[in-house]
Amino acid sequence: MPNDTPVAQPHVPPVIAVDAMGGDIGPSVVVPGALDAARGTGCALIFVGDEAAINAELATANSEGIDVAVRHCTQVAEMREKPSDILRRKKDSSIQVACRLVKDGEADGVVSAGNSGATVACGMFIMGRIKGVERPALASIMPTVKQPMVLIDVGANVDCKPHHLFQFGVMAEVLASDILGRVRPKVGLLSIGEEEGKGNSLVKEAFELFKMASLNFVGNVEGRDVFTGDVDVVVCDGFVGNVALKLSEGLGASLGRLLRNELTRGIRARLGTMLAMSALKRFARLVDYAEYGGAPLLGLRGIAIVCHGASNAKAITSAVHMAATFVEKRTNEHLIEKLSANEELTRYASAAADR
Amino acid sequence: MPNDTPVAQPHVPPVIAVDAMGGDIGPSVVVPGALDAARGTGCALIFVGDEAAINAELATANSEGIDVAVRHCTQVAEMREKPSDILRRKKDSSIQVACRLVKDGEADGVVSAGNSGATVACGMFIMGRIKGVERPALASIMPTVKQPMVLIDVGANVDCKPHHLFQFGVMAEVLASDILGRVRPKVGLLSIGEEEGKGNSLVKEAFELFKMASLNFVGNVEGRDVFTGDVDVVVCDGFVGNVALKLSEGLGASLGRLLRNELTRGIRARLGTMLAMSALKRFARLVDYAEYGGAPLLGLRGIAIVCHGASNAKAITSAVHMAATFVEKRTNEHLIEKLSANEELTRYASAAADR
Repeated sequence: MPNDTPVAQPHVPPVIAVDAMGGDIGPSVVVPGALDAARGTGCALIFVGDEAAINAELATANSEGIDVAVRHCTQVAEMREKPSDILRRKKDSSIQVACRLVKDGEADGVVSAGNSGATVACGMFIMGRIKGVERPALASIMPTVKQPMVLIDVGANVDCKPHHLFQFGVMAEVLASDILGRVRPKVGLLSIGEEEGKGNSLVKEAFELFKMASLNFVGNVEGRDVFTGDVDVVVCDGFVGNVALKLSEGLGASLGRLLRNELTRGIRARLGTMLAMSALKRFARLVDYAEYGGAPLLGLRGIAIVCHGASNAKAITSAVHMAATFVEKRTNEHLIEKLSANEELTRYASAAADR
Repeated sequence: MPNDTPVAQPHVPPVIAVDAMGGDIGPSVVVPGALDAARGTGCALIFVGDEAAINAELATANSEGIDVAVRHCTQVAEMREKPSDILRRKKDSSIQVACRLVKDGEADGVVSAGNSGATVACGMFIMGRIKGVERPALASIMPTVKQPMVLIDVGANVDCKPHHLFQFGVMAEVLASDILGRVRPKVGLLSIGEEEGKGNSLVKEAFELFKMASLNFVGNVEGRDVFTGDVDVVVCDGFVGNVALKLSEGLGASLGRLLRNELTRGIRARLGTMLAMSALKRFARLVDYAEYGGAPLLGLRGIAIVCHGASNAKAITSAVHMAATFVEKRTNEHLIEKLSANEELTRYASAAADR
């Protein structure tokens, strides 16, 4: 249900609805994490969830000078529940209520570390899509050797058409420009060979669209190019992107564990590790996904940031920070401009996919 | 062109045709690497390529007691050439000649670090498929925290049907059992959630087949489970697998570089690094793909091991070693048995995919 009415004017300062019940730990991590971001950015917060639990956290935290409100609700979307069930049956769940705050113009965006599928579903069906967007997509900001890059889609759309991939690229280009500050971001298409003509049929067809568009398209990139930092945006379908994201997390964690095991064997290694500790800590920080907080769901009438279930307070801080920046930079308006500049091409490809 | 005649009896000891011209470096790496494997396994070698270049390497290497032959040919498959062009036009290229040695019964298998696509194409069209195999698949043996596992397909088939994925799993189970020595290998399907019903339409349909088969199927696994070592075989289409493989290589290399940068900053870190050096070296070995040599192409009438273009001598040694083990274990016979045990299910699904 794309919506033709213009996107609502954002609040100044931005108002972020925070799903206090989301995440493996809940309010005790979410509340202090969000407060930290509000202190840094000056945004206002509406915590959504069990009022008593939220107030208990607020009582022990320092919220001086921060514009904080609490919206009580009685239900929680569990991690194992199906998104469609949450959408249909849990009308008073914290994620639904938070999305409704955006729909009703009380907030500009939502941050949740709860059931990701539910956040995507509630974002799409309660907040609604912005004009011209067929499929909102999850963008993940990933660390690289040089500077962070955007991987899109990391799981919102598993079976895609070429023009979906194309819109993902258009939206992520705006993200790279507004949030990462890149000038003419380089956009690549994830494939299994650099040459044009390499890839599966989806990628080959998407390539043709990217070539024709007003984007700084650098062609196909391979898995090994994702972490070099030479490309700002890497586009793929949500199945491939989700596998890539979780594989990277898994590999990072596994390598870290191996390294730790190796470095605690033997007295020389242990002594060496102590001396090299600050360097190892810097290394750990570079591969720490919490630095980048959450994955923005692009293409909604409002902002939704999907955080990892295992988010710590720092990850929540980063996510709320990102949401506020999104509002301040008027990223959604830029998305609309960029999408409409490529509207004809998208419409043509969409019609071709239906034939 | 699947072939109904039985697979030829393997030579004792195994005879491996080695594409001496393959790889970024060529004979100076391939010849000593293969000789090392022959010394370890007792297999015989036929080096295929430019006779003068091969003999020059043999003259400086120690080939005492090894059964070595040289098959001269005049052409080389370049890395950038299209596999179909090599197949059609370069009849005297080292990879074609090597595959023909297997077809003609002079060798049991081929090892090449040349153009991977050409090796796959020549393997399929010159050596031919074994009975019942619709799509030969590339299996990669990957390091994990615990023990190596098999990822299949890593690039031979980019657009797959459910029964292709199913056959990949059946073939890789035999590999895990024969080459990695696993008893009742655990087979997982790469998806974006553990629960049944998660994934794209390809994976959801393949899940149904795996459930019905005589395999130790453990259900869906996610990207983060690949490197834990808890599953022996992870099945995916060749696009996803190739992205996953190259992403892992890229991430491993990037993390290694970051770590090196961090550990050479400052005098304390440098001193610490010196003390921890042997531990760091063990870590590097654990993430070194050369340990596992090459990717076997499963489903051919013979054996083909596809090595990385950047293979060093150690990687070639591992690959030739794997080829010899393949022959000795009679892995192709086991493949045929296992495939025919699941023949009815495959045929049913293949017919369903055509409807």
